[in-house]
Amino acid sequence: MLVRFEFEGKKYEGIMADESITCGGLSYELDDIRILPPAAPTKIVCIGLNYTDHAEELGMKIPDEPIIFLKPPSSLIGHNSSILVPRENGRVDYEAELAVIIGTRCKNVSASSAADVIMGYSCFNDVTERTLQKKDGQWTRAKSFDTFAPLGPGTVSDIDTSNLRITSRVNAELKQDSSTSKMIFSVGELVEFISSIMTLEKGDVISTGTPAGVEQLKRGDIVEVEIEDVGILRNTVKCQPNAAL
Amino acid sequence: MLVRFEFEGKKYEGIMADESITCGGLSYELDDIRILPPAAPTKIVCIGLNYTDHAEELGMKIPDEPIIFLKPPSSLIGHNSSILVPRENGRVDYEAELAVIIGTRCKNVSASSAADVIMGYSCFNDVTERTLQKKDGQWTRAKSFDTFAPLGPGTVSDIDTSNLRITSRVNAELKQDSSTSKMIFSVGELVEFISSIMTLEKGDVISTGTPAGVEQLKRGDIVEVEIEDVGILRNTVKCQPNAAL
Repeated sequence: MLVRFEFEGKKYEGIMADESITCGGLSYELDDIRILPPAAPTKIVCIGLNYTDHAEELGMKIPDEPIIFLKPPSSLIGHNSSILVPRENGRVDYEAELAVIIGTRCKNVSASSAADVIMGYSCFNDVTERTLQKKDGQWTRAKSFDTFAPLGPGTVSDIDTSNLRITSRVNAELKQDSSTSKMIFSVGELVEFISSIMTLEKGDVISTGTPAGVEQLKRGDIVEVEIEDVGILRNTVKCQPNAAL
Repeated sequence: MLVRFEFEGKKYEGIMADESITCGGLSYELDDIRILPPAAPTKIVCIGLNYTDHAEELGMKIPDEPIIFLKPPSSLIGHNSSILVPRENGRVDYEAELAVIIGTRCKNVSASSAADVIMGYSCFNDVTERTLQKKDGQWTRAKSFDTFAPLGPGTVSDIDTSNLRITSRVNAELKQDSSTSKMIFSVGELVEFISSIMTLEKGDVISTGTPAGVEQLKRGDIVEVEIEDVGILRNTVKCQPNAAL
């Protein structure tokens, strides 16, 4: 797995295996470095409802086209960084998702040639403030708080994403447990749909929706998103100074 | 007015007055250069319903908090560039808006100190595909097509934005005609609200909502957004190759 990291104030890219990272002939211990998000997107495009089990759970009909929304780059954090809960009395949920990282500037890409523009895959947590999502109708505020877009730990490429187990755990307890085979729109179809609307840039992120089983996070929780062959993204939950859970 | 422009493949910044631009002791004719968007934002944060006359026109109640949404940087174009209509049978509307350009990275800015983080102001056209906006519920797709975020022509600073006439014209015919005094949330209040959610970066754009009078654009139209003391943003409407109006 390819990861970006910071060591003594400088940024590097290396290969992560087990508990160390190799870069330029040197080996770094995970405890000594800070893992960065594996991409620097100009935009993060997310999908609203893309798993049949999640649609059934909510009693909603299967959409005929993807529903897209954006999260700002300022919401990105990497593996092991903290999700900051922003306000009192809210409900902040995790949402485990497979993220696609674009490798080259593109427009109007067909589903069948989507692999040509994909640099790799990562784990994503589409953290969402459920109370504000309902109040606003538009989802932007609820999903755009700083730290609400954990991505990582790194990037893997050359994998078949059509049937990967995707799970989330809170404090080691299994919460979501599904397969990317239950996606309503495939990775290729999403790339085709989104790139018919907007030019995708190198480093842009498409997150492909979450399966059933989303629940609330609380201060002190450790939340993990695990995707078979892709990795485990782990983040802790803290409160912003003026918020209380 | 400070403008960014391209001349013979290189980018410059200069002062525009009447029909020429001054930069580094040289004078460029407008016909010889291409005006670029005056900012390179990491995000464009827009406001859904921020003028009392537009709320009355739609029969909607005044919101108690701003409704925000994002447009991707890939949708940006500058003054004199073309808005490309994306699909058959759609309805693409103009929306004249005052844009705020952030001058410095910031978080949790109070309304009273918002001026300290604002680099300047510009004209914005929040181009919207009305059919898709209604279909999706979420506004992102309808507002995120390439060319759907005209911004310009340049940036002005040190102005009082509390009572400026804001108008739009299509083919020289007056369409929208209001005042920024009719904003529900002031520029300062919007900076405070948005920066309480997300870190704002240098160059980020906040667009402050549109007044009453939005209508459809058609191929060949010339649409202008004019804001007193800020400037005139002019764009033509063309079709993408496979679309027909």
